Amino acid sequence: MVIDPRLDLVLERTIDVSPELVWMAWTQPERLKKWFTPAPWTTVDCEIDLRPGGVFRTVMRSPEGRDFPSLGCYLEIVPQRKLVWTDALEAGYRPSRQDPHLSFRFTASVLLEPHGKGTKYTAIAMHGDEASRKKHDDMGFQAGWGKALEQLVEHMKKTRV
Amino acid sequence: MVIDPRLDLVLERTIDVSPELVWMAWTQPERLKKWFTPAPWTTVDCEIDLRPGGVFRTVMRSPEGRDFPSLGCYLEIVPQRKLVWTDALEAGYRPSRQDPHLSFRFTASVLLEPHGKGTKYTAIAMHGDEASRKKHDDMGFQAGWGKALEQLVEHMKKTRV
Repeated sequence: MVIDPRLDLVLERTIDVSPELVWMAWTQPERLKKWFTPAPWTTVDCEIDLRPGGVFRTVMRSPEGRDFPSLGCYLEIVPQRKLVWTDALEAGYRPSRQDPHLSFRFTASVLLEPHGKGTKYTAIAMHGDEASRKKHDDMGFQAGWGKALEQLVEHMKKTRV
Repeated sequence: MVIDPRLDLVLERTIDVSPELVWMAWTQPERLKKWFTPAPWTTVDCEIDLRPGGVFRTVMRSPEGRDFPSLGCYLEIVPQRKLVWTDALEAGYRPSRQDPHLSFRFTASVLLEPHGKGTKYTAIAMHGDEASRKKHDDMGFQAGWGKALEQLVEHMKKTRV
């Protein structure tokens, strides 16, 4: 991944669950729903077709009960190491039909490296322009993805397989 | 490929050059420049990084000498059978920074099947909405891609390897 600091946002953490468990949390819909949105937001629906061109769909619910559906498409899948998807495309690589002015486009990569018994975790959000990066930053990328990751760790520790 | 007739444009032809030669014409910049734009338009530059996430860049020149650069990203590559790319993304899967109101987004697939000594050739352009499909259709997708394919056949017959 070539990171451009003007256009990208990066979250790096070392966590004490294994890449295998982090991978399960990201790729099994019933697990993902447990941690994906920082509380008090919830994830009420999730669809995962884990192959390049496959759909990654979530519905996030606000504390007031408003639903925010999100559609993306997987691009690269390296089990337990790398997951890449974008919301610029939908299932089957079809360009997204969402109005780009309602949100911003990003391509996300989650990179996992074994680190002792845990994982070096890197999440990258790539944008097409500085305005989109800023919008994502202002929405609270660092705090939001950070809190969701804490929830992931907590959930996977409780439900260790 | 799942084709949606409301959103997609399809060109199908049977041509008398082999999938191997069609593949070369689509994946070698110096060859692509010979046929890619229907005359009197020309293709004056071409960059191909033939891997998922790699760049597909062309510059088309109008008869009046105006240049139209185009940036895309390869998604799927099955040598001599299938080539998929999109202009919704740039190199490294970064969302495109082009203004979506200046053009339209599409994902293109070129599918090749051996047919005798020739090729059953299918080109599909997928769009996110009906307006984009119509814009591409009105621009002359059928005539343009059809004429370019005739140029491809003519060029590869002359330069048989």
